[in-house]
Amino acid sequence: MKVSDKLLAAHRDPSSPATFSFEFFTPKTTQGVQNLYDRMDRMYNLNPLFIDITWNAGGNLSNLTSEMVNITSTVLGLETCMHLTCTNMPLKLIDDALQNAYNSGCQNILALRGDPPLDGSESTGDFKYAKDLINHIRSKFGDYFCIGIAAYPEGHPEEPDNLKTLEYLKQKQDAGADFIVTQLFYDVDNFINWAKQCKDYGINIPIIPGIMPISNYNAFIRRAKWNGVKIPQNFIDRLDPIKDDDSKVRDEGCLLMAELCQKLIDSKLINHLHFYTMNLEKSTTMLLDKLNLVSLNSKMNYELENSKPWRKSLNPSRESENVRPIFWKNRKFSYIQRTNNWDEFPNGRWGDSKSPAFGSLDMFEHEIIRHSPTKILQLWDKPLNINDLGKLIINYINNKINCLPWSDTQVTTEINSIKANLIKLNENGILTINSQPKINGVKSNDPIFGWGPSNGYVYQKQYLEFLIPKSKIDNLINNINEINELNNYDILNYIITDSKTTTILKSNITDQSDVNAVTWGCFPGKEVAQPTIVEKVSFLAWKDELYLILKKWSNVLLNSSNDLTNQPDESDRINDLKSSKFIKSLIDDYVLVNLVDNDYVNQDDRIFTLFDNI
Amino acid sequence: MKVSDKLLAAHRDPSSPATFSFEFFTPKTTQGVQNLYDRMDRMYNLNPLFIDITWNAGGNLSNLTSEMVNITSTVLGLETCMHLTCTNMPLKLIDDALQNAYNSGCQNILALRGDPPLDGSESTGDFKYAKDLINHIRSKFGDYFCIGIAAYPEGHPEEPDNLKTLEYLKQKQDAGADFIVTQLFYDVDNFINWAKQCKDYGINIPIIPGIMPISNYNAFIRRAKWNGVKIPQNFIDRLDPIKDDDSKVRDEGCLLMAELCQKLIDSKLINHLHFYTMNLEKSTTMLLDKLNLVSLNSKMNYELENSKPWRKSLNPSRESENVRPIFWKNRKFSYIQRTNNWDEFPNGRWGDSKSPAFGSLDMFEHEIIRHSPTKILQLWDKPLNINDLGKLIINYINNKINCLPWSDTQVTTEINSIKANLIKLNENGILTINSQPKINGVKSNDPIFGWGPSNGYVYQKQYLEFLIPKSKIDNLINNINEINELNNYDILNYIITDSKTTTILKSNITDQSDVNAVTWGCFPGKEVAQPTIVEKVSFLAWKDELYLILKKWSNVLLNSSNDLTNQPDESDRINDLKSSKFIKSLIDDYVLVNLVDNDYVNQDDRIFTLFDNI
Repeated sequence: MKVSDKLLAAHRDPSSPATFSFEFFTPKTTQGVQNLYDRMDRMYNLNPLFIDITWNAGGNLSNLTSEMVNITSTVLGLETCMHLTCTNMPLKLIDDALQNAYNSGCQNILALRGDPPLDGSESTGDFKYAKDLINHIRSKFGDYFCIGIAAYPEGHPEEPDNLKTLEYLKQKQDAGADFIVTQLFYDVDNFINWAKQCKDYGINIPIIPGIMPISNYNAFIRRAKWNGVKIPQNFIDRLDPIKDDDSKVRDEGCLLMAELCQKLIDSKLINHLHFYTMNLEKSTTMLLDKLNLVSLNSKMNYELENSKPWRKSLNPSRESENVRPIFWKNRKFSYIQRTNNWDEFPNGRWGDSKSPAFGSLDMFEHEIIRHSPTKILQLWDKPLNINDLGKLIINYINNKINCLPWSDTQVTTEINSIKANLIKLNENGILTINSQPKINGVKSNDPIFGWGPSNGYVYQKQYLEFLIPKSKIDNLINNINEINELNNYDILNYIITDSKTTTILKSNITDQSDVNAVTWGCFPGKEVAQPTIVEKVSFLAWKDELYLILKKWSNVLLNSSNDLTNQPDESDRINDLKSSKFIKSLIDDYVLVNLVDNDYVNQDDRIFTLFDNI
Repeated sequence: MKVSDKLLAAHRDPSSPATFSFEFFTPKTTQGVQNLYDRMDRMYNLNPLFIDITWNAGGNLSNLTSEMVNITSTVLGLETCMHLTCTNMPLKLIDDALQNAYNSGCQNILALRGDPPLDGSESTGDFKYAKDLINHIRSKFGDYFCIGIAAYPEGHPEEPDNLKTLEYLKQKQDAGADFIVTQLFYDVDNFINWAKQCKDYGINIPIIPGIMPISNYNAFIRRAKWNGVKIPQNFIDRLDPIKDDDSKVRDEGCLLMAELCQKLIDSKLINHLHFYTMNLEKSTTMLLDKLNLVSLNSKMNYELENSKPWRKSLNPSRESENVRPIFWKNRKFSYIQRTNNWDEFPNGRWGDSKSPAFGSLDMFEHEIIRHSPTKILQLWDKPLNINDLGKLIINYINNKINCLPWSDTQVTTEINSIKANLIKLNENGILTINSQPKINGVKSNDPIFGWGPSNGYVYQKQYLEFLIPKSKIDNLINNINEINELNNYDILNYIITDSKTTTILKSNITDQSDVNAVTWGCFPGKEVAQPTIVEKVSFLAWKDELYLILKKWSNVLLNSSNDLTNQPDESDRINDLKSSKFIKSLIDDYVLVNLVDNDYVNQDDRIFTLFDNI
């Protein structure tokens, strides 16, 4: 969706809170990219109107910008604006970047001139000015893209005549630009004055101020100098005395920038803030908190109409995707990768693409755990036995760690009602993989469970997936059967499989094609949406993935045990080996079970009573 | 489904109540056929395991049996068993009848020899015995059909040797017969004895006793003589003294037959009763009531798994039909006719057959009101104005009349909660056409609202469809808008159209393709089923039908006003003309409105508050 349309929609009511966006730059290493995705994923929850990815002009990672734009749009579901510079850039590269953005469903380009060569020579390439790039985009893609441009509230470094910079800006607007993002600045009075000048000059597209949070005194000073912007005296007065204490600088800097932002908002000239995050989370989040914009914006979801209980992809090829198996609830990267080549996504009904050809696992075994071996060891240490691993999962459930080998996503408050039960299972050697509590008709705008159009009601069947020793499944099934007999029907459905089989080991679902909707919503004027399901075919695809994750994890530990350089201490290496063997034993000795409680109406945690005596 | 399989399923638990079936014969007139359909339709609610249609051997209405089998299976959703005799019957006729049954989804044939020619000559045709017919059916259709045969517990009229009749029966079983239906009888001890003999002789297919209710003394005596069966003394003792009082005979006859049936059930040899209804309703219903079988069976639905909130067709071509627009809720005949040629029924999602090609109305204009002109006048008299017509609809709502020109079906208790509101509307010149109350998660086996697999929950959005004077729609829309504004969203959706337009006149549903599920159910281990919907395209098809019904009704009254023979009295003819003009005025001056209350959770009848000041 276009940034300009989103701004319009968000501010149709002038009393709506200010919206905001985040700018990220392309990291230098692959692991840095992975980490940034995780950070973006968390920052998604702050509900930015869009994010920016800077242009990686040339260099080794020349198409990293395009790659990242694809991931943020397709996997992370973040409205993305791609930066694109035009000087010193071959036309082919520009066209490829635009086409890639188009294919990813990205509809926003920040059209930049780009810096002149550092050696002072003339710029090369087909375009000289951002204006030329705008014309090119419009001639090639018509109105498809929303085009942003840069502006310098304190004057362009190469153009001392302020009136001329206004004229250039106006020319870019006339060429087809839709919004303006400004350079960073600290002098808010000057900015407001400049914004008024723009208006008077006939520049009426939205002006978005670039906000640079202050996290460190030296960086603050350096950036101001580098960008040639004025530092008001009060910034110096309040920051200089504490300049050696980073944490104090961040707190005071946050106050200063909050005052600046508030003045912008109060001026009524500005309703959107663009944060230069520098790929960091903390300073931006603090500032948003101080401005109270997170709580104000979290209640509004400008795309609620299209929302799903899972993160909706913005890639147009996945537009009709209405259903996902619950197994990948916390694995959006692998799920999207494995279903990337589906011609058509299940439209309202999973059955339309029965036995879906999940992409082969071999294709991306190297990235099945999305972290480097070093990071893997650092994140999850070396669990030596079931108790260690249970504790690790409990830490995840308690939000003390952000991810597990099989979960990309942080635990949300959604699971609070079953948290104690999940912890108890993990304390008792039953490793919980995925779960959701039962929900009976909660309002669709509920902050925890809500999704979809407003004024509807959403529902969930309780779902629990876990690894359990093979030796316990007979007792487990007995307990399930007992509850089902007591209820005179299969109130609990189970599917059990293991690493070796290619089919289902045991299940009380007799019809192979049965699809159990476990999340659905009823909305005004609409069909019932049922976006999350359980079915046998996809459960088998998922279990292959899960056991492969364990294999990969075990291998990382095995390699580490052989690594004399990084692990000079033999006892460390012995523990690595022990841990590797333990993880491998899960593949051989543990079965994967999923359980659905079909009674979503009575608030009975019957699923958790199954484990009492097994 | 096969009668044998249904019997097995119904009696898997030996303590299940006895099941029953109804036999109907082919009426002599077209109007008689229409009336019988209505009767069968009502008797469907008694939940018979199946019904029989007798074979219309030759004659003018030679394919009436096939026609009726198609209607009972396809439109009425009654499991049907077709009688078929083989002597004096050309093979082509037999094969056509079997093929028609097959095409209709009828899986049960009662294979009969048929009576010998009345003149005493030898039988002609390809088959001599029922056994031959059985062999033919098996060779041609394999196991597709379940085959019933006839038996004579008191001996075959043409075969005095009882052992021989047992042997013939055994031969028919060995040829492939699946169940036995017996001739009528009154001597229950003899019957039980004979049934035991059958068992001892190796006849182990189910024996179904033919039960002939007693409604009239003379008919009772005549039938016993005609069929050559014994009348036990106690029947004479109790019936002879009251033989001239039909109503007393029926009461006492009901007691006698109830005692007979109870003895059969108590013998444990019998778990199913086959009623010779003689196309009448009362005697059979009384007998079932006396035996308490209606209440026992109404709680059981052997096909609940497949049930829908509308009457499911048993025709295999409609197997995947999962959705119907609510507009035809009470018009199953026309709905099935108009959708007969759809290659594929919407499978789970209406969208799959968008803009469905509803069959042309011209094709069956003559039968758009399913009654003869005489019956039409008799059923609904001649409403002279809006008050008369309002009263007629109120009579329908109060179950004082069984049908209206636009409703085939009797009002059910489902509408009780909104009955008073509906009556009030009709008293005030707003003609209600169709409606349903809101339901929020009632158990799926609820006797009034339940449908679908058991242990689920069903839901309904409140729906109201009505005719209202054109002059009132602005006020109506104002009232709707007021409520919607008060709720901050379109809690009420409306669609308004009239007889002249080919599109929608007014609606607050902006998206032409929006489909509003107004009935849905959530079941264990299943997707959410959403079988009843509202959408614009089908509403337009429906309004054409409704206005055509009014036109036809008006024409019937106009013709009657010109009919000097049947209406010799001029004032009658003047009233006919007046009524005809009044009905026609509805076509010109009334718009058709449908309203959906999207909030199914709060039990607020807000729809009915819309009419207070218009």
